[in-house]
Amino acid sequence: MTFTYHRTVRFQDTDAAGVVYFANILAICHEAYEESIASVGINLKEFFTHPPIAFPIIHANVDFFRPISCGDKLVVSLIPYKQGVDKFEIAYEILVDLFVVAKAQTRHVCIDTSTRNKREFPDEISEWLETNRKDREEALRRKSREVM
Amino acid sequence: MTFTYHRTVRFQDTDAAGVVYFANILAICHEAYEESIASVGINLKEFFTHPPIAFPIIHANVDFFRPISCGDKLVVSLIPYKQGVDKFEIAYEILVDLFVVAKAQTRHVCIDTSTRNKREFPDEISEWLETNRKDREEALRRKSREVM
Amino acid sequence: MTFTYHRTVRFQDTDAAGVVYFANILAICHEAYEESIASVGINLKEFFTHPPIAFPIIHANVDFFRPISCGDKLVVSLIPYKQGVDKFEIAYEILVDLFVVAKAQTRHVCIDTSTRNKREFPDEISEWLETNRKDREEALRRKSREVM
Amino acid sequence: MTFTYHRTVRFQDTDAAGVVYFANILAICHEAYEESIASVGINLKEFFTHPPIAFPIIHANVDFFRPISCGDKLVVSLIPYKQGVDKFEIAYEILVDLFVVAKAQTRHVCIDTSTRNKREFPDEISEWLETNRKDREEALRRKSREVM
Repeated sequence: MTFTYHRTVRFQDTDAAGVVYFANILAICHEAYEESIASVGINLKEFFTHPPIAFPIIHANVDFFRPISCGDKLVVSLIPYKQGVDKFEIAYEILVDLFVVAKAQTRHVCIDTSTRNKREFPDEISEWLETNRKDREEALRRKSREVM
Repeated sequence: MTFTYHRTVRFQDTDAAGVVYFANILAICHEAYEESIASVGINLKEFFTHPPIAFPIIHANVDFFRPISCGDKLVVSLIPYKQGVDKFEIAYEILVDLFVVAKAQTRHVCIDTSTRNKREFPDEISEWLETNRKDREEALRRKSREVM
Repeated sequence: MTFTYHRTVRFQDTDAAGVVYFANILAICHEAYEESIASVGINLKEFFTHPPIAFPIIHANVDFFRPISCGDKLVVSLIPYKQGVDKFEIAYEILVDLFVVAKAQTRHVCIDTSTRNKREFPDEISEWLETNRKDREEALRRKSREVM
Repeated sequence: MTFTYHRTVRFQDTDAAGVVYFANILAICHEAYEESIASVGINLKEFFTHPPIAFPIIHANVDFFRPISCGDKLVVSLIPYKQGVDKFEIAYEILVDLFVVAKAQTRHVCIDTSTRNKREFPDEISEWLETNRKDREEALRRKSREVM
């Protein structure tokens, strides 16, 4: 029920140690975020190219559990959480063959790009957050029913 | 009939001018090459991670016809050409909405990575080149029949 | 007294929002780490290219306080902290014109790359950690003398 | 006499084959171009961040003569050539320990970014081209005197 993004690890993602360069995992998480907002109809070009309203990342963190290699088929699942009227956080889980190989988080703040002041979410992002909240609750309900 | 690779332009592919950073188009072409060799059963991890035989690029070139933006749906088509027993060249065409936005070429040489001397293609690459040659000729035959 | 690394922000570090792409700040921190270990005589090619002993990152985090633009002159200062016999953490502070624009941390574990098991630090890394510890304590002593 | 740029190869520039990822050499050449235009007083932030006049690359090519490793000290020399009133080309040579490891070229066209139509060079770029032309001719004169 949570949004998932499929991504093959590319040669350019790797480094001379033979595995994925650490910072590239955060970039792959951001790709999943892009795919998620595109999935609710948001136009990526307008959203990301010199936009009047933007959602810069103010914090990111990532934990690595296993090395990730060229050709690995990543499954990135993503859950956004609303934090007040002008902030959201996204939790990412990256799997290869059902093993969690990394986990990450990004925190975004909504700003007016001309002033760089915080502002309330525009409707399209509120709806994306709401859609994801419903999907998450639905998934939890189903899970708890299975347990009973 | 030629191999095609579909790729959405990501935020990280762009630069402060608002469009794709030029060198990233060559990286996207390389992704298409990776996908093409994976499609004939070659294991990408073994092929690209400290391999005994490698195919380093000795030349690359790219021409840009239109700016490419975040969110653009690229279709990369690729044709490899055998050049003797130890070299091949790949021609790439990148389209957005049926328009050619860029063209590129990469030239690869087959080497033994321990000595870095040239060597003949291993079977799996000979087969990949042969499969692509047949597909290309088949496509040409069909085209010429359509003309008649 | 702490190690500092100077780095101009490049066009390729930026994205279509006009500022540095978030994950690239972690890559710039890693450059400072590379420069720091090179400064104590460690050979970067041997250290990073298919080495028998490696120091993969198991955790990274970054906080952004101000947008960073193409051409900005970054000053990255770095303090490594030993954590037991097989782990270390590095704290980074990134300044532009004396303002802290970002802070980051990376946590590294020492492994034998053939088995990927943890192992004790080799001498050169113990010495790098020790050199940095002494510099840090010296800086603190000087600071406390200035206060008195 | 020609402009030179010094750059240490970073871990993130490399790939799982253990050497620099091919497209990254073009990015390093672009860094040399950025440094060259900064050296005549051009403000990089204004020049590259959503500018009214831009110089997109319409062609690039690169030849590789030797593998390039993490830690290698690159010396990139660069010569720009004016081509009419709205185009210029830059030739790059990349050396490690006095050996040429790669050569590259980029071709740029001057455009008005609002219309994306070609336009004549602004003064600052004409001056940068002229400064480089004089340096080049001076270098050639000196060389020919040495030969006599």
